[in-house]
Amino acid sequence: MKVACLGAGQLGRMLALAGYPLGIELEFYDRTADTPGGQVGPILTGEFDDLNKLKKLARRADVVTFDWENVPVGSLTALKGLAPIYPQPAALAVAQDRLLEKKLFVQLGIPTPGFFAVESHDDLKAAITKIGLPGILKTRRMGYDGKGQYRLTKPSDVAKAWSALGGQPLIYEAFIHFSREVSLIAVRSQKAELAYYPLSENSHHDGILHSTCAPFKAPALQRKAERYLRMVLEHFRYVGVLTIEFFVADGQLVANEMAPRVHNSGHWTIEGAVTSQFENHLRAILGWPLGSTQARGYSAMLNFIGSLPDRQTLLTQPGVHLHDYGKREARPGRKLGHATLVADSSLARDRALKLLSRQLKSTKRQTRAR
Amino acid sequence: MKVACLGAGQLGRMLALAGYPLGIELEFYDRTADTPGGQVGPILTGEFDDLNKLKKLARRADVVTFDWENVPVGSLTALKGLAPIYPQPAALAVAQDRLLEKKLFVQLGIPTPGFFAVESHDDLKAAITKIGLPGILKTRRMGYDGKGQYRLTKPSDVAKAWSALGGQPLIYEAFIHFSREVSLIAVRSQKAELAYYPLSENSHHDGILHSTCAPFKAPALQRKAERYLRMVLEHFRYVGVLTIEFFVADGQLVANEMAPRVHNSGHWTIEGAVTSQFENHLRAILGWPLGSTQARGYSAMLNFIGSLPDRQTLLTQPGVHLHDYGKREARPGRKLGHATLVADSSLARDRALKLLSRQLKSTKRQTRAR
Repeated sequence: MKVACLGAGQLGRMLALAGYPLGIELEFYDRTADTPGGQVGPILTGEFDDLNKLKKLARRADVVTFDWENVPVGSLTALKGLAPIYPQPAALAVAQDRLLEKKLFVQLGIPTPGFFAVESHDDLKAAITKIGLPGILKTRRMGYDGKGQYRLTKPSDVAKAWSALGGQPLIYEAFIHFSREVSLIAVRSQKAELAYYPLSENSHHDGILHSTCAPFKAPALQRKAERYLRMVLEHFRYVGVLTIEFFVADGQLVANEMAPRVHNSGHWTIEGAVTSQFENHLRAILGWPLGSTQARGYSAMLNFIGSLPDRQTLLTQPGVHLHDYGKREARPGRKLGHATLVADSSLARDRALKLLSRQLKSTKRQTRAR
Repeated sequence: MKVACLGAGQLGRMLALAGYPLGIELEFYDRTADTPGGQVGPILTGEFDDLNKLKKLARRADVVTFDWENVPVGSLTALKGLAPIYPQPAALAVAQDRLLEKKLFVQLGIPTPGFFAVESHDDLKAAITKIGLPGILKTRRMGYDGKGQYRLTKPSDVAKAWSALGGQPLIYEAFIHFSREVSLIAVRSQKAELAYYPLSENSHHDGILHSTCAPFKAPALQRKAERYLRMVLEHFRYVGVLTIEFFVADGQLVANEMAPRVHNSGHWTIEGAVTSQFENHLRAILGWPLGSTQARGYSAMLNFIGSLPDRQTLLTQPGVHLHDYGKREARPGRKLGHATLVADSSLARDRALKLLSRQLKSTKRQTRAR
């Protein structure tokens, strides 16, 4: 089986590595060849609006998918008829636009922070009057890892926020005082089979996912999250993995955003679930039976952002699993890899995570001291 | 890090897939490119005695290893000085010759079936006089998966066995009436760190491994097996994964053969142990800390020999993991893939294995009936 994957980042890389044992080969498409995906599988290089090249790719694939959320929807729809495209371009179009995304949540009765579209400085002032402060001004499109966001806490922030982001379609959202951030990863197959992973609890630093602990055991929230995800999945007759990030505020789930793809908060499923999100995404888009989404023990995932730790130091802790994305260039804020550890209890997991974090910090200090 | 791997079979393929997340790239060497390994990583093609090509490969590698037991030892030793070679050629030389292997077991005090070297028809008759019948006549070299073996049960078999195998260096071994077959996989790192997996219980059909269940919990045998493996590892100052297959007869371990590499009876460690044999082999030969060899639950591994089952049927059982080696040509007796399942108890594991076997048999019948 051959799966064409638009985008060859770390998500595509982990999809390819999940595919090989199943007899599935990914062929990547990206602007340059030396990408995390291109290092582990064949890659065709080109721009994402080069329809001739994209069609060539689609024609030799059994199914087309993507690992990058900003693939132009028009490029995907141009491939219709050449190969099935999963997840559906319609779901991607909504996920690419914070306004459409929020409107969908409202339409389906999924709680989400109050919001207003902002096209002008006056719109912004009007939105603040209605929603109040603090709030967050965000670009509707192309935002990720906290990029394209400005948090407003006092009236004097308005002008600064507008000068930082004004001139493009924006959205102003109420700021949610949350106690936790969680995400639910669900998968729906071509044959409408549905499966849900246990909730993950996420911790962000500077807008970027820093660590995930799973399963986050809260049966009532789990049931509610599954109901929300099912509504979105069935709305699109969605095929593949879908993730929704939620705030937990006053014990309730408030949807923050959705990702029509495998998700950083599901990396723990490689070691920590019976079937990984990557394998299940492939099974789903190929119409195969889904694998069990059950957790195996208690997992923690730690992102490596901006730099990778020393491999040997990291691996001294015998249950730690390293995932190096093979990126040649380290930049601040760039996700270069992650580590996962799995324990028999949440207590043992928390202890192991603390040990690992301490170990990595002390290495960093040593490196600096030299 | 770059590891050169001589041989690009399924073992190499699984080594490569274990390497990518660690930031390790394997470069394969084999006669043809479209091999299980060559499908997932770069490959240089050539004959195994083409020293110029092999030297080119070794020069750009951080370490040289092999996934094929019949790599000419001379080709490996010719690479000395260009890169470290692990496991050591001296261990490979012994493993390639059943006589040297058995002599090593005797030298180290590891119980092994009685044996005599056989160079002539008279040698064979003399060996039978000493050891008796039944016994097994084996070629000293190049035997695997039950090939190059002849079982003698009555005096009239002698002439037949000689005409089948005579004319090459042979060994005649006592036949062991065993109750079980088990194997122990151990790993020793460049830094002399040692680790042992739990014993696996193996079942062979027609001389080929059919299925493995692990862990086989027998603390006294585990301790004894670890002691035997340690003696062999320390004898060679071995680096990498080493496997010894044992018969269990009258509650005692009797060493059958050793393999200086990752082993089919350790495939369950991918899902069923904290760190797989493949990852630990790479960690060992690179001088990295070893990962935990602890079992996670109770695993069963089922080999697919001669044909692969229908993927979708196989994956209907939600906890089953497929490993397709990507071999283009199915031949009787050829290992094309395997499946692993992991359960919370040995009882649940045995039930799941039975269910899977039954399911695969019924599919086969259906396929035939069509």
